[in-house]
Amino acid sequence: MDAYEAIVTKRDTREYEQRPIEPDALRRIVQAARMAGSSKNAQPIRLVLVTDPEIKQRLAGCGDFTQHLPQSPMVAVVVRLGDSRPFDAGRVAQNMMVAARAEGVASCPVGIQHDECARQLLSLPPEAIVAMAITLGYPVPGTAGGRGDQRIQLDQFVYQQTWDGHRGL
Amino acid sequence: MDAYEAIVTKRDTREYEQRPIEPDALRRIVQAARMAGSSKNAQPIRLVLVTDPEIKQRLAGCGDFTQHLPQSPMVAVVVRLGDSRPFDAGRVAQNMMVAARAEGVASCPVGIQHDECARQLLSLPPEAIVAMAITLGYPVPGTAGGRGDQRIQLDQFVYQQTWDGHRGL
Repeated sequence: MDAYEAIVTKRDTREYEQRPIEPDALRRIVQAARMAGSSKNAQPIRLVLVTDPEIKQRLAGCGDFTQHLPQSPMVAVVVRLGDSRPFDAGRVAQNMMVAARAEGVASCPVGIQHDECARQLLSLPPEAIVAMAITLGYPVPGTAGGRGDQRIQLDQFVYQQTWDGHRGL
Repeated sequence: MDAYEAIVTKRDTREYEQRPIEPDALRRIVQAARMAGSSKNAQPIRLVLVTDPEIKQRLAGCGDFTQHLPQSPMVAVVVRLGDSRPFDAGRVAQNMMVAARAEGVASCPVGIQHDECARQLLSLPPEAIVAMAITLGYPVPGTAGGRGDQRIQLDQFVYQQTWDGHRGL
């Protein structure tokens, strides 16, 4: 799929078919995550790929608004090491989700707010924290794309030169 | 350009030709930023597009490691509003940079550490802070892709089920 098309048609989607992600597609999704740039090339991000039903169920208990997590075929837990930036975790996650979109795989970020809960469940080392979990799976045909359909207009989103300059392109 | 190719070949690049970004390419880059998903679809991110030489020069003074900023044809300042997440700013920035890559436009994130300096320079409102600046331009032919060439291997990057599980795919 064309890069621009994959980017602008990606919607955060929570309803998936139960079949697993094809191995070749998964490999490209993970490679996309791995190749994301990071501040000073510190590469502080790791993925924990969870398909185990019990771990998914317990992981859902480590966050809020996680109802769809146990039914997601895969959960890619995005882990930050050390004093790394959530911004870099966002870069990794977006690469992964756009690459997934190009493979026909839908995705959605899910906050895992309870650090200690996730650390114990996933046996994370002390210097690691969960930046986000990304649910992944083939979308149920006909399901809506979620709230992502609405976006603010360009003249609300873009400012020229300064905040009090011309808006839009 | 194919989505996967754009994602995995994107390198953070700081040396640009002096010509401006083509309008159609710029429009797609900005649309890619605008279409990024955000937590609860709050859409807390805005862009300030800076091409003015004096503003670029002064913006470089608001951060460290910003030497290449004044010579960059465009600086897209990624602004966060309210109590938004840097993670969402990373999603926007990565969309923008991958879309740029597909247009043959190189890019690099640059930290703007001095909030008040940037706020005054860009006339940002009190609830806004600069998450990152992204320099953009057509790459100088033959310049190296930067440190982005090296990435940790898959068996260092991916863990199965838990941190003490199998590594790699």
